[in-house]
Amino acid sequence: MTTIITTLKGQPLDKVVLDSMLRRRMFYTPSFEIYGGVGGLYDYGPPGCSLQANIVDLWRKHFVLEENMLEVDCTVLTPHEVLKTSGHVDKFADWMCKDPVNGEIMRADHFVELMLETRLDADKVARGLKVEKKDDKKKRKETKMPPIMLEESVVKEYQEVLARIDNYDGCELGKMIKKYDLKNPATGVMPSEPVPFNLMFQTKIGPSTNLPGYLRPETAQGQFLNFAKLLDYNQGNMPFASASIGKSYRNEISPRAGLLRVREFLMAEIEHFVDPQGGKKHDRFQEVAHVELVLLDRDTQLSGQTTTRKVAIGQAVQEGLVDNETLGYFLARIHLFLEKIGIDLTKMRFRQHMANEMAHYACDCWDAEMLTSTGWVECVGCADRSAYDLSVHAKKTGAPLLVRERREEPLVIEEWEIDLIRKNFGPLFKKDAKAVEAALMASSQEERARMAKQMQETSKATLEVPDIGNGTVEFNDECIKIEFRKRVENTREYTPNVIEPSFGIGRILYSLIEHNFWMRGSDGGDETRGVLSFPPTIAPIKVLIVPLSSNSQFTPHIKKLSQQLRNLGISNRIDDSSASIGKRYSRNDELGTPLGITVDFQTLQDGTVTLRDRDTTDQLRAEASKILDAIKALVDGSKNWDMVASELPKFEGQEVEIAIR
Amino acid sequence: MTTIITTLKGQPLDKVVLDSMLRRRMFYTPSFEIYGGVGGLYDYGPPGCSLQANIVDLWRKHFVLEENMLEVDCTVLTPHEVLKTSGHVDKFADWMCKDPVNGEIMRADHFVELMLETRLDADKVARGLKVEKKDDKKKRKETKMPPIMLEESVVKEYQEVLARIDNYDGCELGKMIKKYDLKNPATGVMPSEPVPFNLMFQTKIGPSTNLPGYLRPETAQGQFLNFAKLLDYNQGNMPFASASIGKSYRNEISPRAGLLRVREFLMAEIEHFVDPQGGKKHDRFQEVAHVELVLLDRDTQLSGQTTTRKVAIGQAVQEGLVDNETLGYFLARIHLFLEKIGIDLTKMRFRQHMANEMAHYACDCWDAEMLTSTGWVECVGCADRSAYDLSVHAKKTGAPLLVRERREEPLVIEEWEIDLIRKNFGPLFKKDAKAVEAALMASSQEERARMAKQMQETSKATLEVPDIGNGTVEFNDECIKIEFRKRVENTREYTPNVIEPSFGIGRILYSLIEHNFWMRGSDGGDETRGVLSFPPTIAPIKVLIVPLSSNSQFTPHIKKLSQQLRNLGISNRIDDSSASIGKRYSRNDELGTPLGITVDFQTLQDGTVTLRDRDTTDQLRAEASKILDAIKALVDGSKNWDMVASELPKFEGQEVEIAIR
Repeated sequence: MTTIITTLKGQPLDKVVLDSMLRRRMFYTPSFEIYGGVGGLYDYGPPGCSLQANIVDLWRKHFVLEENMLEVDCTVLTPHEVLKTSGHVDKFADWMCKDPVNGEIMRADHFVELMLETRLDADKVARGLKVEKKDDKKKRKETKMPPIMLEESVVKEYQEVLARIDNYDGCELGKMIKKYDLKNPATGVMPSEPVPFNLMFQTKIGPSTNLPGYLRPETAQGQFLNFAKLLDYNQGNMPFASASIGKSYRNEISPRAGLLRVREFLMAEIEHFVDPQGGKKHDRFQEVAHVELVLLDRDTQLSGQTTTRKVAIGQAVQEGLVDNETLGYFLARIHLFLEKIGIDLTKMRFRQHMANEMAHYACDCWDAEMLTSTGWVECVGCADRSAYDLSVHAKKTGAPLLVRERREEPLVIEEWEIDLIRKNFGPLFKKDAKAVEAALMASSQEERARMAKQMQETSKATLEVPDIGNGTVEFNDECIKIEFRKRVENTREYTPNVIEPSFGIGRILYSLIEHNFWMRGSDGGDETRGVLSFPPTIAPIKVLIVPLSSNSQFTPHIKKLSQQLRNLGISNRIDDSSASIGKRYSRNDELGTPLGITVDFQTLQDGTVTLRDRDTTDQLRAEASKILDAIKALVDGSKNWDMVASELPKFEGQEVEIAIR
Repeated sequence: MTTIITTLKGQPLDKVVLDSMLRRRMFYTPSFEIYGGVGGLYDYGPPGCSLQANIVDLWRKHFVLEENMLEVDCTVLTPHEVLKTSGHVDKFADWMCKDPVNGEIMRADHFVELMLETRLDADKVARGLKVEKKDDKKKRKETKMPPIMLEESVVKEYQEVLARIDNYDGCELGKMIKKYDLKNPATGVMPSEPVPFNLMFQTKIGPSTNLPGYLRPETAQGQFLNFAKLLDYNQGNMPFASASIGKSYRNEISPRAGLLRVREFLMAEIEHFVDPQGGKKHDRFQEVAHVELVLLDRDTQLSGQTTTRKVAIGQAVQEGLVDNETLGYFLARIHLFLEKIGIDLTKMRFRQHMANEMAHYACDCWDAEMLTSTGWVECVGCADRSAYDLSVHAKKTGAPLLVRERREEPLVIEEWEIDLIRKNFGPLFKKDAKAVEAALMASSQEERARMAKQMQETSKATLEVPDIGNGTVEFNDECIKIEFRKRVENTREYTPNVIEPSFGIGRILYSLIEHNFWMRGSDGGDETRGVLSFPPTIAPIKVLIVPLSSNSQFTPHIKKLSQQLRNLGISNRIDDSSASIGKRYSRNDELGTPLGITVDFQTLQDGTVTLRDRDTTDQLRAEASKILDAIKALVDGSKNWDMVASELPKFEGQEVEIAIR
């Protein structure tokens, strides 16, 4: 199914126009561009940087403040051993292949995807069908091939492969390259067998070279390693969540142009630690149970479909579509956050990961995906990491990454226990002592019962220990003691499970831009101009201040207004350039500035100014102090434009004409 | 002069007590501690992280918002070529020496410093004088030596070396090690000759290994590289400032324990671009001219003194003590910022760098230094980087990192100009053509006048070009033309100078903690307890909510208050543990929580609650809504405790007793 991506007002989205506007207004820009740039690295200019800060600020309020999460700031530099234990050294890799002729390095799944898409496109052309334009892949141009029609069954097979392209491992990708005879168009030869390429940036810590380290690929590990301290800070109370906002790094093999696949990116991650017993209930779940989400579950995808279902999260959890309340609670909270910052809810869905698509640490995962001009983009992952990370780090270091909880009802345990009488045990088994002890400790209750009986009858007992002697070890009653004992446990120990909502801020920011973009004047008339209709809380700059002309009488008024807004903590920008008012306003529509104040000759007489709304271009006029009050309410979200417009007189003077044009 | 470091209330500061408190309350903690930790890497726990976020937030308001700075967010990953050009690859190094026996690696200046201080201490002990305790150097213990008296002249020489320890290069440090016979106490041998060790972390960008890169050592370079785009964004207006908040990295040879010398740290940097002509005036200088700063200038230090002088910045600039208004403006703004966040002004000074102490790019620099238990610590640098960075990057890349400005008065230039007649010039000089052309273009007006005369008289002219032929090159009138021409320039081109205030957030945060720390109850009575008297705007958590007891009737009140505070954006923490109210309050005094609300039985009857002030432990009592209004005013800084206390009734119920104890 081909989806045409539209703007906020339903116009077809022209990516070229949007990109040029974002570049011109310096939302973001390739890093080191005067040195030729580096793939996958982007700098945020003033509006992008401010947009990012506003998203982060709202995130902190929506999650950290609202839920009393324990925010931490851990280092990016991470020693080898930590990421070895977490599994990233061995498993955090993409499949890479190399062209044996020109040495070009390619991501294997991207290569297969591109080649099959090219063949499908050539087939479409041959059949006289429309080919969807995709602009995210640089290589596409050189890959173009003449129209060749494919057999129906081949088309279907290619489409099925593409639908599951994220699920293949290197071996499978390698087989497909051979099976479909996929050759690099640049050289005409087949690339090498895919090999894993670890995505972590490596470095060395300290002046001696013996401490290799990495730039973290996620902020999560620092939170896990601090679990015991965080639990202590939280006075031992469970459940609780930690949170972290910071940069992470992935050395992408083939970063895409733009913010969607970059090598350095800002993440905001929550690790919610919960008792795995009791169904992972959440005590605020009822507050969100009514929130309706658009879900695309695993089974639907497995059947090759992408049909979504809109369902209240309360019901989704009840039906078992979403595994538990805690996971469901966070899906709903993520939804509410994205709605708050201005994501278009008609371009959003939650997609469940398929089994072989999940990260090595996850046991379930739902992604919040946004529809953009490059298709559905994963912006937030919400994974159930179970007890994986805490367990592996505890095992490796011996640190008690667990919760000790007083049992309400003491637990009575009756079982066979084995005591070693060490002074005799060691000398008896010598070099085998450790292995024999381990086998004893691992013995089952049944075996122990049998051994106790043997011991009682013969003062000796045997146990099969494969690798020792002839495989049977004999114990006497001077080296071990076996007793049936009753024990009362007042404390329960458990390793918490982790639910992890993980936000890619750059991807959210880019989606937000596309979702709020539209073209003014495209219904005919003059040239069209871009507008970014960000909500005022999120907009990079809140207020544009313009004097009617360069008349110096306006200057003190302009300066005073700017200072008054700053005192209210409201970012503003003065545009006293010689451009027409209309032009100055439309320049700031491109920045997404929601409000504009004009100072004109009437201001000099009565102290009134006009206030313009970016989206409707309607204007109001009142005393400066009343306008400032209105701005404050609009920016903090306590009022919307309609409410303000009902309270202040409308203005239809000459500037309106100029501004609307 | 020995200074005893005191707390906010003048008590001697007990570093051990403070450190233990910071650790217990998880302000910060060694990263990867369960893996044994890594030197110079620290994680911020919840209160440290929140403190950091509040400092950054205030920084953004004080600088970025107030001055309409252009904030950018550039990547940490930086390709080799950029840092080669900036000089960091060659010059950003410390001097390192190695013990040839045990392989220990030491920073050469630290080694010399430690050894001389140890000898001076031993001398003091021999003379029966008191030895200052320093706790920042791990090695100090093993360095201890028996009391030995030194000659007066030697004491003086050592002291002079120590006063200038930041100014020596590796060669000088090496000479001192030999001259003073400094041997590593661990092995009894002299360390090797100091060699430079580059402080940048190196990595590789991309899957092929041909793009070496570094983690940036400062955020500045990204701002310089984007200069042309930023100027354009600013509609060509000068002066303007960019700003950036982000992590930087320095692979310290011997990081100290604590936050003062770490390998990964948060910086906030401003690059203010200013026209070098016209004395670097600043149009808001008058707003700060009255601000008094404590200055320690270069000349005073050269004379071996540390006497400071308190002087209004207006006067300091007038006297030439501070070079120009822009530099002075920022020194004053830095002072005001540090005051606002709660730095103790009696423990702060601005120290001018000595000539050989400055970074390779700086031509003048003043540091804002804070007095802490480890001495004076540089927390903010304010450097004049002149046109260094923009010039080197422009030269390397050919990018126009400059300002083009319309001249008010066109500039008339009359001078000798040389035109090449290329079709003849090239064939005539062949392989020397480039060098000859360069020599011609570099020729002075005098030489050109002489050559023109020769040409007129003989149709030939000569110029000395050392490395070509016999050193004299002859030109005919078919290969060059020399004319005296008049030219009118309407545009002026210049490379801006840069004034750079650069903030080390971690160092500021640590100094702030020490400056706000004191011990309650140290005037006798019970055990003493730590308090952190942060200003409410900066405090990690604003309000503690405590129920009088665990009675479940209090729960709905507690929850409602917490929600109401969150709706106001005010962070709060409920402590419903079974500890006494006094204990719960003092736990939160340690976190620096400025306000506390108690819910008690009276609350159930009349809806009133008490509000406690951390610093005085005074309490007020009023309806919850009035208390919330008061909290809001205290947190946003519009009222202080005395103002609030004059408006609401004092409370002296039984809880006061418990709380004050």
